[in-house]
Amino acid sequence: MKELEERIVKDGKIIGDNILKVDSFINHQIDTKLAYQIADYFASSFPNVTKILTIEASGIAFAMATAAKYNFCPLVFARKSSSLILDTKHVYNTKIASYTKRITNNVYVDKHYLKPTDHVLIIDDFMADGNAAMGLIELCKKANCIIEGVAVVIEKAFQHGRRRIEKENIKVISAATIEKFENGGVIFK
Amino acid sequence: MKELEERIVKDGKIIGDNILKVDSFINHQIDTKLAYQIADYFASSFPNVTKILTIEASGIAFAMATAAKYNFCPLVFARKSSSLILDTKHVYNTKIASYTKRITNNVYVDKHYLKPTDHVLIIDDFMADGNAAMGLIELCKKANCIIEGVAVVIEKAFQHGRRRIEKENIKVISAATIEKFENGGVIFK
Repeated sequence: MKELEERIVKDGKIIGDNILKVDSFINHQIDTKLAYQIADYFASSFPNVTKILTIEASGIAFAMATAAKYNFCPLVFARKSSSLILDTKHVYNTKIASYTKRITNNVYVDKHYLKPTDHVLIIDDFMADGNAAMGLIELCKKANCIIEGVAVVIEKAFQHGRRRIEKENIKVISAATIEKFENGGVIFK
Repeated sequence: MKELEERIVKDGKIIGDNILKVDSFINHQIDTKLAYQIADYFASSFPNVTKILTIEASGIAFAMATAAKYNFCPLVFARKSSSLILDTKHVYNTKIASYTKRITNNVYVDKHYLKPTDHVLIIDDFMADGNAAMGLIELCKKANCIIEGVAVVIEKAFQHGRRRIEKENIKVISAATIEKFENGGVIFK
């Protein structure tokens, strides 16, 4: 998406070797007009969605905008917990490692909110090694949902997220795909 | 709001004496159609808003829906941190105690994203003792923002949130106001 790429060039900040900071328009302050444009892009790529799944917190804004495009379909956000949820009778759970925060969260969804009849679109703000997306895919598999695909706002194509997800025969799209960082700038794919 | 009250009666669950569980449509799975109706209600109550402020995670969905009603104004969500952010040069911070989780979070907003020219509407999903709202008000005051008001999805009127906020001469509205719980049911104000 041209609008997002231009914005990343204008307002993104590269920290260290490969952390892109987009706090000013994606994950602390949100440019909501851009977010709804990104939602349009997601919705045009996946026609048959009946439920949106994301993970707290930054994914929720994009999930909310995208749900509106599917005639206001339900949105479920997986919750993080510092302690392992042992109540596997009522929840599906997994562990998700955060690339930037270098911690692992226990993540769960109440079994009532993922059903075999759901056509699920998984949404997140960033994809690097794909840990969050893979964790959400695992929750969908436990629930026997139909996974329509994964849509992320910004993908780092030099990491392994896409390869891991496509290996599961699941379609992935990203609104901006970063090929590499070079001389303090961003090269898009 | 009649739609929300009816939904609380239909799908809300009262846990113990005064915890209302609305996981199925507000803060785990979200009925996004209802959320955008709630956003309409919020927007009709505050005409002059240029920025939405909320706190991760459940507030983000309602903040995102509401921002769309203000011609897609920017949305800022305060971030929680397990450790105190000592970088007071770059962030405004405060502490917010969670009523249901019985923990206190350090909460911060980057100084770039709250400015004296911002007309801020503070949004959250629940208000009990008003700790989250009061914390967000404190961040706005540190930034010298113009606070247009506080809008919450569900207010527990038998706790002290509203009194604390109105004492600051700040307008509060709630989409559903619970007077009390009685015989396992909800009485609205």
